[in-house]
Amino acid sequence: MSKTPREFELIARLTAKLRHSRRTILGPGDDCAILAPSRYPQLITIDSMVEGVHFKLDWSTPEALGARALTVNLSDIAAMGGVPTACVVNLAIRPALGSRFFDRLYTGLSAAARAAGVDIVGGNVTSADALAITIALVGDARRSALRRDAARVGDEIFVTGTVGDATLGWQILAGKLSARGPSRKFLIDRFLCPTARLTAGQRLTLINPPPAAIDISDGLWQDLGHVLERSGVGAEIEAATLPLSAAYRAVAGDNLEFALSGGEDYELLFCLRPGHSEAALSRRLGVPARRIGKIVSGRRARLVGKTGSSQLAAPSLGGWDQLRAHGGS
Amino acid sequence: MSKTPREFELIARLTAKLRHSRRTILGPGDDCAILAPSRYPQLITIDSMVEGVHFKLDWSTPEALGARALTVNLSDIAAMGGVPTACVVNLAIRPALGSRFFDRLYTGLSAAARAAGVDIVGGNVTSADALAITIALVGDARRSALRRDAARVGDEIFVTGTVGDATLGWQILAGKLSARGPSRKFLIDRFLCPTARLTAGQRLTLINPPPAAIDISDGLWQDLGHVLERSGVGAEIEAATLPLSAAYRAVAGDNLEFALSGGEDYELLFCLRPGHSEAALSRRLGVPARRIGKIVSGRRARLVGKTGSSQLAAPSLGGWDQLRAHGGS
Repeated sequence: MSKTPREFELIARLTAKLRHSRRTILGPGDDCAILAPSRYPQLITIDSMVEGVHFKLDWSTPEALGARALTVNLSDIAAMGGVPTACVVNLAIRPALGSRFFDRLYTGLSAAARAAGVDIVGGNVTSADALAITIALVGDARRSALRRDAARVGDEIFVTGTVGDATLGWQILAGKLSARGPSRKFLIDRFLCPTARLTAGQRLTLINPPPAAIDISDGLWQDLGHVLERSGVGAEIEAATLPLSAAYRAVAGDNLEFALSGGEDYELLFCLRPGHSEAALSRRLGVPARRIGKIVSGRRARLVGKTGSSQLAAPSLGGWDQLRAHGGS
Repeated sequence: MSKTPREFELIARLTAKLRHSRRTILGPGDDCAILAPSRYPQLITIDSMVEGVHFKLDWSTPEALGARALTVNLSDIAAMGGVPTACVVNLAIRPALGSRFFDRLYTGLSAAARAAGVDIVGGNVTSADALAITIALVGDARRSALRRDAARVGDEIFVTGTVGDATLGWQILAGKLSARGPSRKFLIDRFLCPTARLTAGQRLTLINPPPAAIDISDGLWQDLGHVLERSGVGAEIEAATLPLSAAYRAVAGDNLEFALSGGEDYELLFCLRPGHSEAALSRRLGVPARRIGKIVSGRRARLVGKTGSSQLAAPSLGGWDQLRAHGGS
């Protein structure tokens, strides 16, 4: 599409400093980038962050925003067990944001890309009323990909890390919840600076049969529902086993609503044939892994066991599809 | 990123009917799509259309809008001489637009994808204040890609089709220009329903050495400037040779401003060693090709010959860089 001089200058400025691996035959500055052929099946995903919908500018530094825009895509590659390789970036910019802002955004984005071994091979800038960062990311599926449709009755369900932190952090930033001290900082950091579980995902592909997996971007209950739907199975989740951080407990007590329905954690949920201990799995994946339930026949998810003073409404626990109908995130 | 129920439903609805070639191992519905490995270098590009910036909804049908969103990306693949294979689509949606609108948008998008042999392998939907369609497209570079940096002194410069039509169509739609009858319809169609010159681009890769090429999305003068900048050369364009449609002449007379600075034509500009006749080239490429000038030493573009009553300001003709500074499109 036709560009304004400002859009041209910004593209040139942001892409000038980018460095590439030998995989990239041609980086930004032509009609397309050119990547060397890969011998592996190619993973591809696209995700977008829109100002006022997913973030506000006063919530974080531009660097953290740039890094996060890539991380949410990296998490999709992680959930397939892939190795991310290259991305193209579309920035929708609004007039009030100056070059310095975008320099800093790209500093964070580039650093996150470098850390993940990703080349930023193309960029596009367009004008809009709100800032939006849309990234398409490709990667190699070096082994069998972790698919949502691979869960089987009898599988045990695990999650990495802790769940519900990011949504608490988001609610604190949005002024909907108050918290103090280290808990506040921890939860906000979990929202603003998530980690894509790339290594854990890649190591899961070494297990036979390849586990079903998904990243928790929409909330554990919702994302579990995607696995159940695609696999044609049900699940029982044991409330008492959900991995909650100390900060979560400090702020939300034993209310499981945030852990079940809050998104943006970017942890992995995966399903394994029985026989894996949490300790051995955690060592193998390089991140704590917690067994939270099992795959059963049927098509519904049930939360079982003591739920304490959970404010999660009973109907929404009946099945993921009901939570979905009532607003999953 | 966390999704609302409406976003989920729309993704599911829009991707349910998509069909894929055997290249696509896994289509929409997982964290990533999976494409079979290709033996060719991979082309990748991203482009975005934003409501109120690039289009208005009352200018065209939703089908035409969907098709155009893909075509502007196809044109980038065409300009590299590539074969497009797969795309992922990010829709930023606003509340007032209903499911029926998006069904129709995807009908047009899918038809354009099918016609070009492209699989739509992934989709993402996010909320926003304005509709935006962002597509990342990949393709095969089956032969040497047509790069912007390949122009050499002595090359002859050609363009396909006619130039300036789309910007006239846009100005008519925007109420900045009036036109009637077949000319009006032709020019508006050229803006709303552009053609990506995929076959022409692919056939250009059979020429040795591979020509420098670019698609005319930002205007002939601006896009020529990109070739000159990347190749480190200059150009002389003969005003009298610019290929103008009968409708262009009917509406703009001999004013070359629209032909030189208007974008959105999605024709190809390319540079060949001397010796190709227009007639033979046109047959070979399957589209009319017109010789419009030559590559010279230096770093500037000059418009030579009779320019008639051109309203193009003299300074902006001094060099593409000056036009750029004054707003190329």
